[in-house]
Amino acid sequence: MKQSVHSLEIATRGQGLYEFTSTIREWTSRQQMQTALLTIFCRHTSASLLIQENADPTVRADLKAYFDRIAPEDGPYEHDSEGPDDMPAHLKTALTQVQLSIPLVNSKLALGTWQGVYLFEHRVRPHRREIVLHLVGE
Amino acid sequence: MKQSVHSLEIATRGQGLYEFTSTIREWTSRQQMQTALLTIFCRHTSASLLIQENADPTVRADLKAYFDRIAPEDGPYEHDSEGPDDMPAHLKTALTQVQLSIPLVNSKLALGTWQGVYLFEHRVRPHRREIVLHLVGE
Amino acid sequence: MKQSVHSLEIATRGQGLYEFTSTIREWTSRQQMQTALLTIFCRHTSASLLIQENADPTVRADLKAYFDRIAPEDGPYEHDSEGPDDMPAHLKTALTQVQLSIPLVNSKLALGTWQGVYLFEHRVRPHRREIVLHLVGE
Repeated sequence: MKQSVHSLEIATRGQGLYEFTSTIREWTSRQQMQTALLTIFCRHTSASLLIQENADPTVRADLKAYFDRIAPEDGPYEHDSEGPDDMPAHLKTALTQVQLSIPLVNSKLALGTWQGVYLFEHRVRPHRREIVLHLVGE
Repeated sequence: MKQSVHSLEIATRGQGLYEFTSTIREWTSRQQMQTALLTIFCRHTSASLLIQENADPTVRADLKAYFDRIAPEDGPYEHDSEGPDDMPAHLKTALTQVQLSIPLVNSKLALGTWQGVYLFEHRVRPHRREIVLHLVGE
Repeated sequence: MKQSVHSLEIATRGQGLYEFTSTIREWTSRQQMQTALLTIFCRHTSASLLIQENADPTVRADLKAYFDRIAPEDGPYEHDSEGPDDMPAHLKTALTQVQLSIPLVNSKLALGTWQGVYLFEHRVRPHRREIVLHLVGE
């Protein structure tokens, strides 16, 4: 049994879903393990991780619009010192995840056919988001 | 240290919570580990996983009704090519989880007294849902 | 490769966010691993875990108020035998997480600068909440 760790950055250009499934797959594949557990960790409180459908792009548009509706910028928030999109960003992060673990079976990530891994950026301005990957297995 | 992996299917008959705690417990027990980490992964984007109260069944009825209210079928969605229950299913999946990890301590899953593990089916029609189990420990 | 497990209790005094990042850091540090995966598991269905901003306290006040709004005590619930705060507590738990995993890299948890780990208590009365920690690595 062994472990591998890796850090990567995703440059975002405003709110929305940024797929990085292929980046994860390539790095995982280079570690040459057969059976393992991959953990993806997002080091932020205003961006999160989501596994969602990677086929029809309207799903992502609807996801973004939905989270904008349930955590609107004009909510009754106390915290507003970092801009009107900041508190909604914290709420959207709380409602989704900052960590995902995916088993590796027969050298392949156990993602379903329609599952893609996304960074969900909740801030309006561009950011560089740090993601840590951890793999344990053999 | 060693690993075990397993694939199982859950046949659903419409929306709702399907408990499979005993299936997980039995498989985990057969791997004869004392200390380990069990990861449960759901390979879908319109069904999810939930750890919830396994005592009073009205909790599950209320959970289902609540998610129907916050992600209704008549929302302003662009994505509707797969039926009116499909986009709400993606939203409910995003609001819950597709992955859960549970420590195994003294050969027992660390679930609390009232915690059951459920597949949360969000589609109306029957489906066969694939779940991958991964156990690492000794 | 080795594993460590630990159980800890958090005494809560009503609804809100209770940070326990330093407790986790200290225990993890004592295990003297360099690279590992830490899993935090909450053994309850009416309290949950959240990684959120540990700087401005108004973020936590807004988080609490937000979850009170989206899962109010006066909702149309069937389950009310355990008090008006119980079903909202189950809903808030379902919307957040009972498990978090954080990579350990170069002997440090990969938490971002502003990320703190919180127990999110959803019940009004004081409770003792059990948290299980599992660490695998070397």
